[in-house]
Amino acid sequence: MTDLARFSINQMTVKQLALPELVDACRELGVPGVGLWREPVQAYGVEAAAKLVRDAGLTVTTLCRGGFLTAIDAGERAAALADNRRAVDEAATLGTDTLVLVSGGLPAGSKDLRGARERIADALAELGPYAEEHGVKLAIEPLHPMFASDRCVVSTLAQALDIAERFPAHQVGVTVDTYHIWWDDTAPVQIARAGAQGRIHTFQLADWITPLPEGVLNGRGQIGDGAVDMREWKRYVEAAGYTGAIEVELFNDALWARDGREVLAETAARFVEHAG
Amino acid sequence: MTDLARFSINQMTVKQLALPELVDACRELGVPGVGLWREPVQAYGVEAAAKLVRDAGLTVTTLCRGGFLTAIDAGERAAALADNRRAVDEAATLGTDTLVLVSGGLPAGSKDLRGARERIADALAELGPYAEEHGVKLAIEPLHPMFASDRCVVSTLAQALDIAERFPAHQVGVTVDTYHIWWDDTAPVQIARAGAQGRIHTFQLADWITPLPEGVLNGRGQIGDGAVDMREWKRYVEAAGYTGAIEVELFNDALWARDGREVLAETAARFVEHAG
Repeated sequence: MTDLARFSINQMTVKQLALPELVDACRELGVPGVGLWREPVQAYGVEAAAKLVRDAGLTVTTLCRGGFLTAIDAGERAAALADNRRAVDEAATLGTDTLVLVSGGLPAGSKDLRGARERIADALAELGPYAEEHGVKLAIEPLHPMFASDRCVVSTLAQALDIAERFPAHQVGVTVDTYHIWWDDTAPVQIARAGAQGRIHTFQLADWITPLPEGVLNGRGQIGDGAVDMREWKRYVEAAGYTGAIEVELFNDALWARDGREVLAETAARFVEHAG
Repeated sequence: MTDLARFSINQMTVKQLALPELVDACRELGVPGVGLWREPVQAYGVEAAAKLVRDAGLTVTTLCRGGFLTAIDAGERAAALADNRRAVDEAATLGTDTLVLVSGGLPAGSKDLRGARERIADALAELGPYAEEHGVKLAIEPLHPMFASDRCVVSTLAQALDIAERFPAHQVGVTVDTYHIWWDDTAPVQIARAGAQGRIHTFQLADWITPLPEGVLNGRGQIGDGAVDMREWKRYVEAAGYTGAIEVELFNDALWARDGREVLAETAARFVEHAG
């Protein structure tokens, strides 16, 4: 492994590792960055987690995740906004400048995608300034259209940018994740659009493999195992001016069943082979 | 049930019914149209099937399906073209003017979506004139992006039309199926584009429900059970000038486990309720 300078391991990829084990393994392998998740960080303690990664010299490239901003009910909306402010606070404490947003699906019984997308924009009008005050950028992540009803009504980079563009780029940008956009022939143009506006706030990799498992959430492929040409997408984001970290974020039951350090080492090697 | 005039039942929705049972049930319920599938028709005999539906006064709205035109290997390509010519012949024998095409996925080991899409266009340059000679129109069906690697590299109406537009509209058009495009905010504009060119060759309904089953193929929801606003999509195709049959095509293990006549009656009732 010769070039891990831009590699970041998303904590979910090796969720079987407790945070101190993950930090140890990163140090041992020369992995310079981590993308963290709120739940395991909260369980460890946000301040303690911040100290742990800081002392190890690790860069926290993102915090995953805020969002779920599509509720219609006033009480649910208020709770979601409050939770997202806490997520901003946690990101600031951890020393990352990027909070990834998964926007949320359709409320039960609703068929109104347009309305749900508008409610996300309404929420960002409140959250964007709050995030800016804390030095945190919000990164709307378009999720694959197979998640449009139950997880994220924002399915394409174009949709994400249509929302993000209503706000300053240092408040709201996008997450470019190969898993969600690899099928979309308009995505390269949208990456250029995002880059020209300074809105590529993070770049994540996962490969597309089939058959998809029941529920389709945990079927993301190890880099190199699937249909995605990682170097092609890396070229697109680089041509758009992105020079930041490249996170590998895999949700995969088979990877989670293995030894976490071994999976981390494999993932780093695959990164160098396919995206280095 | 007051208005089934435009309703067509796709054979796959009630595949538990043998063809004569399906024809009987359609007559009994006043269902005027059927979309047929090649495999059960071939098993019954194409000429015999044609006579059966003709004698019952049923309109065959489509034949499903040709396609799978993405192979690189010359022998595989020739076999696919020959099979698609047979599909055209079968469509003509059955008296339908529309052959639905599922384009095919990536060849094993390939990551080249663009190349695969070009091979589809190459194949249509041969199949389009052949279909025209037999009075059959080819209807490229964009499949949901979750099928992009293993079943259909054409994921959006825009992609389908980019290919179809290279040919005369009476040779090549598109299938508009709510299941595959409901998440796509650019689809209404693409429906208008297709309509203006006379390329909406069939309109199909299925609802989007979650969780998706393993393999994601057989999780299509009964009309009214999911996230899709059927009337909204019907308005789009009608505004684009489409006045033809509306097929309901569901792949659903739970529906297949039930009595086929009961499922057909339910589907007809749901059609009237949600799309009539």
